[in-house]
Amino acid sequence: MGENEDGEIIEHHVNEEMEKRHLTRRAGSFSEGAKRHSSTQSSHRLLAYSDALISIIATVMILPVAHTKIQENEELKESLQQLLTTKIAVYLMTFLIVTVAWAAHIRLFQVIERIDDCLALLNLACMMLITFLPYTFSLMAAFPENILGILFFCGCVVVIGLIQAVIVLYGFSQPFLLNDQIQVSENLAFYKKHILKVILRVPVFCFVAIIFSLIFPPMAYVILAFVIFFPYISQSLKWCHSKAVGRQVETPESMLFYSYHPNEPLSKERVEAFSDGVYAIVATLLILDICEDNVPDPAEVQHKFNSSLVVALQEFGPEFLAYFGSFATVGLLWFVHHSLFMHVTKSTRLMGILNTFSLAFVGGLPLAYQLTHEFTRNSHNELEAIQISCVIIFFAGIFQLAIWVVALFSQRETLHPCVHYGGQDHAFMLAKLALYPAVALGTFFITCVLSEFSAPVFHLTQIVVPVAFLLLRLLVRVALAVLHWLFCPHRPTMLDLQGYDPALCP
Amino acid sequence: MGENEDGEIIEHHVNEEMEKRHLTRRAGSFSEGAKRHSSTQSSHRLLAYSDALISIIATVMILPVAHTKIQENEELKESLQQLLTTKIAVYLMTFLIVTVAWAAHIRLFQVIERIDDCLALLNLACMMLITFLPYTFSLMAAFPENILGILFFCGCVVVIGLIQAVIVLYGFSQPFLLNDQIQVSENLAFYKKHILKVILRVPVFCFVAIIFSLIFPPMAYVILAFVIFFPYISQSLKWCHSKAVGRQVETPESMLFYSYHPNEPLSKERVEAFSDGVYAIVATLLILDICEDNVPDPAEVQHKFNSSLVVALQEFGPEFLAYFGSFATVGLLWFVHHSLFMHVTKSTRLMGILNTFSLAFVGGLPLAYQLTHEFTRNSHNELEAIQISCVIIFFAGIFQLAIWVVALFSQRETLHPCVHYGGQDHAFMLAKLALYPAVALGTFFITCVLSEFSAPVFHLTQIVVPVAFLLLRLLVRVALAVLHWLFCPHRPTMLDLQGYDPALCP
Repeated sequence: MGENEDGEIIEHHVNEEMEKRHLTRRAGSFSEGAKRHSSTQSSHRLLAYSDALISIIATVMILPVAHTKIQENEELKESLQQLLTTKIAVYLMTFLIVTVAWAAHIRLFQVIERIDDCLALLNLACMMLITFLPYTFSLMAAFPENILGILFFCGCVVVIGLIQAVIVLYGFSQPFLLNDQIQVSENLAFYKKHILKVILRVPVFCFVAIIFSLIFPPMAYVILAFVIFFPYISQSLKWCHSKAVGRQVETPESMLFYSYHPNEPLSKERVEAFSDGVYAIVATLLILDICEDNVPDPAEVQHKFNSSLVVALQEFGPEFLAYFGSFATVGLLWFVHHSLFMHVTKSTRLMGILNTFSLAFVGGLPLAYQLTHEFTRNSHNELEAIQISCVIIFFAGIFQLAIWVVALFSQRETLHPCVHYGGQDHAFMLAKLALYPAVALGTFFITCVLSEFSAPVFHLTQIVVPVAFLLLRLLVRVALAVLHWLFCPHRPTMLDLQGYDPALCP
Repeated sequence: MGENEDGEIIEHHVNEEMEKRHLTRRAGSFSEGAKRHSSTQSSHRLLAYSDALISIIATVMILPVAHTKIQENEELKESLQQLLTTKIAVYLMTFLIVTVAWAAHIRLFQVIERIDDCLALLNLACMMLITFLPYTFSLMAAFPENILGILFFCGCVVVIGLIQAVIVLYGFSQPFLLNDQIQVSENLAFYKKHILKVILRVPVFCFVAIIFSLIFPPMAYVILAFVIFFPYISQSLKWCHSKAVGRQVETPESMLFYSYHPNEPLSKERVEAFSDGVYAIVATLLILDICEDNVPDPAEVQHKFNSSLVVALQEFGPEFLAYFGSFATVGLLWFVHHSLFMHVTKSTRLMGILNTFSLAFVGGLPLAYQLTHEFTRNSHNELEAIQISCVIIFFAGIFQLAIWVVALFSQRETLHPCVHYGGQDHAFMLAKLALYPAVALGTFFITCVLSEFSAPVFHLTQIVVPVAFLLLRLLVRVALAVLHWLFCPHRPTMLDLQGYDPALCP
């Protein structure tokens, strides 16, 4: 049976290939441009490189937060307040805006599927401006009354918008670069108009914001917030309108792209590439610092530590512990994400948003781990740092779980059958996704009660969780068997009924 | 004709799909293990994540080099000497060793093509140890007489080797995880023995190095160098032997993997992913520093610059210029790399090594750009910094060109027909690859002659090169036409003969 299914999946691939070929031919027959024009290329690698750049930029603003020195005598709460006010806000805002820019980039290159040299160079120019955005936020945060930060920001966004418009115009002037569906559609002009309208909305609003920033700066911030949330507002208004009038306003088929509907498809490949980038940067953030700062000074070792390098390195013990702890946690969260997206067949915009929230918390993890080892044993600060770590892990995990829950609502389209309700791997996937939130919540409450054992408990979880992941399949089967034996001992087990067949799963 | 070729390419894909399916069935029919076992997965994303991690780690040691403060009154040569002795050596050594570890990782996962949860977790453990290697180098460089650095390094390598051996044993115990070719081969046991022998050689040598480091430390370094160059030495010895004896010692078909032959295939996808990672990190290195260090202090702006943020930011002008310059150069080098690998159909180990050399120079670019803007106008230091930048760009570009030259030697296997000798895009590809080395060499000699205009010349090239890339196809056609007109005005042009047809190219 498994083999059969395998065969079917591949058959499907073959059909897809044939369909593509058919489309290519159809497209080729009417687009004479392809003949005349320079060599076109698949955009796959350009997008992978863009994803790598954007994921670095999205996480970069955690560095100033992580490098804020916390004094030992100061209470953690006070320094946290100082952090919270500006640096963390800048980090979160950068993460939000950069992921919005990334989503716009995905939309654009879902329409333009093939590139040539000219588009590749335009995209690089666009990337250069996107990587400059975090700096404008730092300026805005450091000088809230000065309009220079917002001017820089709006200027960048206007130019990015214009470059994107040029990319669209260029793409539509040479239709063989476009998505196959658009390429063969009748109303190419309608598409072009709709997409240009959506893209140019942002630079126009930003231009208005520039004008307002010269007259009445607060209004400029309001306009910028409006630009970001405009698609969501208009979607909600449409939804309310459809409820009030009573009939469903269906998104027409022609609006497949740039519809801003929560079910709008979001290239799964790019969500994975972006997440991989963020997880990789975050996992290595601490080793970057360690390599630069924690190599002891030869002169100091000679005088202070009596030439004993081992003793000198023991000073840095907490940093190493923090590194291995955060690498393991980020690595395992990546592992959960990887397992989840292995079973996702189509990702939607809503799932993308939840993924962004999860990643934003993951970005804070190295910082939290560094804090847990920076304070004296059993101090109040240490307890709070450990609890903050638990909270961050909890939210990073719970948003991953939320992606799956959202996907389950339209499971036929978005999930592989074996993790559907009643699917053979449903319980296993739930266990994988729930393990980290459950452990984090448990650790949080245990440290509340047994505050003097908080550090040992925290370290214990760091050792137990990887082992739990290794044995998870076994544990889930035992748990299911026990539940079955407790509640309905006379019926055959779920597993027997389904004829457990892992070959069905990807 | 173009359409026809397109059709053929897709036909080929379909055939591949069918072959795979056939293989899967064949494999499925004898590996009963698949039935019993937990869900297996394609390893694609695991490898992408590993590539991202390894590319970050390979480039991280450039940070201590870039953050070395150079005094204005000091001559650049002296500070460079100080840099060259330790930090640059550590950077290059890290880059070398990490890429060796990465090549070993590629070999391993060319044999093991499918993964399950257990392998994914083992791989994460392996990655954690690889990311720790740069730190051990810093220790070795800072404390050359202390054996702790080399002990740490050998310890990490021994554990990495053992984990890889466990992965191989696990893979061969469940043959459906293996490469299809190995899976269906008769002598599975021979493969297993050969691969384990190659993998375990490294930890055994390192173990010997640990013992020597306790008795006679210099010997330990010699052994480590021997481990790295062992495959190359044995290959050369084999080659010499075959020349001396007079007959060709052919690598048997069964040694397709782990043969260390210069033509050994190296997954093209992973070479691209690793290069993308390095280019992305290097392109953003300067903005990371700028975001952290170059936001002016509000109090300072008020006192020193009379509350004028614009004036305060002008102080950082050179940093911004360096950022945009290095981003554009790295971006365009990526663009050349992308164009080259778009036409590569199979990458070999020798091409991988040349690519590594090119990337190692790319890693030094942000540093060189930073230097060009750090000194006073028309100083001797500025001139030298500009010349160093030219040298780095030249070598980064010339190694890219070398990849193509090496590929041309076996062009039937490794290159797309349109860039073969006499192919329609041969001249265009040569122009793309030669543009940066030529411009860098030209700028170098111009600055030697017109030393007082070095900065304007350098800035001019930064503006001219992107425009040249945009217009390159046009320029090449004009140049070809002129050459044709000059040398053989009576024959029809090459372009006419070939019936210029870009649809043939990818």
